[in-house]
Amino acid sequence: MKPTSLTHVRIVGAGLIGTSIALALRAAGIYVDLIDSDSRAQRLAQDLMGDQSLAPSQVEDLCIVATPPDAISEVISMESRRNSDLRVMDISSIKTKPVLEVTASGFDISRFAPTHPMAGREISGPESARGDLFQGRPWILCLDGVETELSAMVEEVVLLCGAAPIRRSIEEHDRAVALVSHLPQITASLLAAQLQGAAAGDLELAGAGLRDTTRIADSDPALWAQIISGNSQAILPLLISLQSDLSQVIASLDQPSAISAVIEQGRQGRANIPGKHGGQARNYTYLAIVIDDKPGQLAAIIESCAKAKVNIEDLAIEHTPGQETGLITLAFSPEDSVIVAAHLQKEGWKVHPSR
Amino acid sequence: MKPTSLTHVRIVGAGLIGTSIALALRAAGIYVDLIDSDSRAQRLAQDLMGDQSLAPSQVEDLCIVATPPDAISEVISMESRRNSDLRVMDISSIKTKPVLEVTASGFDISRFAPTHPMAGREISGPESARGDLFQGRPWILCLDGVETELSAMVEEVVLLCGAAPIRRSIEEHDRAVALVSHLPQITASLLAAQLQGAAAGDLELAGAGLRDTTRIADSDPALWAQIISGNSQAILPLLISLQSDLSQVIASLDQPSAISAVIEQGRQGRANIPGKHGGQARNYTYLAIVIDDKPGQLAAIIESCAKAKVNIEDLAIEHTPGQETGLITLAFSPEDSVIVAAHLQKEGWKVHPSR
Repeated sequence: MKPTSLTHVRIVGAGLIGTSIALALRAAGIYVDLIDSDSRAQRLAQDLMGDQSLAPSQVEDLCIVATPPDAISEVISMESRRNSDLRVMDISSIKTKPVLEVTASGFDISRFAPTHPMAGREISGPESARGDLFQGRPWILCLDGVETELSAMVEEVVLLCGAAPIRRSIEEHDRAVALVSHLPQITASLLAAQLQGAAAGDLELAGAGLRDTTRIADSDPALWAQIISGNSQAILPLLISLQSDLSQVIASLDQPSAISAVIEQGRQGRANIPGKHGGQARNYTYLAIVIDDKPGQLAAIIESCAKAKVNIEDLAIEHTPGQETGLITLAFSPEDSVIVAAHLQKEGWKVHPSR
Repeated sequence: MKPTSLTHVRIVGAGLIGTSIALALRAAGIYVDLIDSDSRAQRLAQDLMGDQSLAPSQVEDLCIVATPPDAISEVISMESRRNSDLRVMDISSIKTKPVLEVTASGFDISRFAPTHPMAGREISGPESARGDLFQGRPWILCLDGVETELSAMVEEVVLLCGAAPIRRSIEEHDRAVALVSHLPQITASLLAAQLQGAAAGDLELAGAGLRDTTRIADSDPALWAQIISGNSQAILPLLISLQSDLSQVIASLDQPSAISAVIEQGRQGRANIPGKHGGQARNYTYLAIVIDDKPGQLAAIIESCAKAKVNIEDLAIEHTPGQETGLITLAFSPEDSVIVAAHLQKEGWKVHPSR
C-alpha cells in the first residue's frame, strides 16, 4: 500500500499511548496537534514533543482519539463539529462497544478505524510515554468496512511507530484480548488483593515470582473498569472456566497427583504462547557443555559445531564471577544434536545432553 | 556469631539449589561432596564444580539435603547410617511436614536445621545452577530447638552464599510462603491452563502482561505437587478467599464501579510488597522535568537540586533515540519537592509536578 504522506495529525488524549504516538510521529517530521482535557498532561506532553514549526493552516489529515473507551463516541461528536471532513482512528483496548456507540451517534462508520496497539504499561500518563513504545509490538487493525484512504493513513501511523500491523475482525479482537490481556489483568488484581492485610514479616519474603505475577495489578482502576465491563461478554466464559478449575484445586489440594496435573496443564497452556520469533516454540534438543573459564572457549565450541556441519538454533551462557567453570547451552534439532554431541565428546568437551 | 570454619560439606541432590550452593561453597574454598540419585545430574554438577583437591579423610562437617521435600526424611535415615555424627540442613519450600516426618523417624531433631532460600527459578536442574543465585536474597532459617554448633554452620553457609538470613518459626514460614509463593504458583498455573486450546491467532497478540503473569507456570509439576499438597493447610484459606473474590467479579462483571474496586484492591495489596530497599514503599513526590537532548543537562539539574539543598530520593531517565527531548523524573520528600520545584522553575527548567 502506497504511503499517504501524512503531514498533520491531531491527537486527543495526552496519556501514555497518545503521547507515545505523538513522539513517534514528531520524530518522523509530522506536525502533531496534541490536546487533553487535563491541562497538566497536555503541557507536559507538549514540552516532551519540543518546538514545532508553524501550525499548518488546513485541518488535520487524521484525528487519533487516544482516550479511555467510554469517551470515544463523545470525542468524535465534538471533533466532527470542528472538522466536517473528520477521519478518526482510536487506540482503545476494546472494540465492539465503542463501535456500537459511534454507530449509534450517527457518525459515518467508514470514517472510524478501530485499532489497538498491544503495548500498554502498568504505569500511565505522559510521563511514562516513549517514542519507541510500539517498536516491534503488534498493533491490531479492525479495518473491515473502513474507507481506503483512512485505512492507508492508519497503516502509515502504525509503520511510523515501528509496530507490526495485524488485521482482525472486531469480534476476533475482543475475544483475543479477553484471553491474553483482560483475564491476566483480573487474575493479577485478584491475586494482589490477597496481600491486603498480610503480616508485614510475611511479605518481606516476597521474591520475583510474586512481583512478576502481580506487576500489572498496578494498572489504572478507572481505565480498567471501562475495559473489563465493556468486554464482559468475551471475558465471562474465561472467568467461569477459571472458577471451575480453582474449585477443583480447592477440592483436591492435598492430593499430589491432582496438583501435579494442574501444574502440568499450566505448562502446556504456556507452551502455546508464541516465542520471541513469533512462531510456536520449536522442538529443540539442548546440550549443556561445561567449559573452563578461559578466553576462546566459546569460539572453539562454535568452530567445532561448524566442523560437524550442524546448525546452532539457540545459545545461552551461564557464568558466575569468581567461579572457575562456565556453562554453555546449545540448542539443536533432535537429529543435529546426536551428531554434534558425538563430535564434541570425541574432541574432549564435557557434554551433557538433556534428558 | 563466630564462623565455624566449615571445611567439608556433603550435598545430597544436584538440582538447581543443591548445585548452586555447591558452586558458592566451592568458590569459598570448601571441599564439596555432591551426590544425586540421577547420575547425569551428578556428573554435570561435578563438572561444573571443577577439580577439587584430594578428599578429606574425615566425614563432612555438615550435610545439606537438597532434595524435594518428600525425600528428606528418607535421605536423612540413609545418611545417618553412613555417618553416626550427622548434622543436617534442608532447603525445601515447606517446613511443617518434613519436620514431622524427620521427628517420626527417630532422628535427633536438634541436629536437623530446616531452612529455605527464597531464590527459586522456573527452570530446574544443575544446568540452571549459578553460584550467585542467592546473592542478596532472603534465606529463611527455622532454628528453634536446633543445637548451637549446627546453627552456626547453617549461618555460615547462608553468608557464604551471599544471602540474607531471616529467622522464622516453622509455622510463620509455612504461612508466609503459602501467600508469597504457593498462592502465586497456583494462580499462575490456573491462568496459563486457560491458554490450552486457544485459537492460534489469539495468542499471537500476547504481550509482556501475559508472559509475566504466567512465567512461573513453567515450574516442575512433580516438585510443586509435593510443595502444595504438603502445605495445603496454610494455602486453603487463601484459595477460598481468592474463590470468593473471583465469584464477586463474575457476579458484577458489567458494573464498572465494582470492577474499579477490584483493581484498586489489587493496587493496595501490591503496595504492601516491600520495595527494593527492603522497607515499605516510601511517600515520595515526583517531579517530571523535560530536558533538551544535549550533554550536561542531567548534571546541571542535579547541581540545581544541590543548590536548593534538597535530597534526591530517586531518579529515572526516559529517553528515546532520535527524539529531541528527554524526561528526568526526580523523587523528593513532599516538603523538599515544593522547595525544589519553585527553585528549578525559577532557573528556567520545564518542571511538571505529579498530580
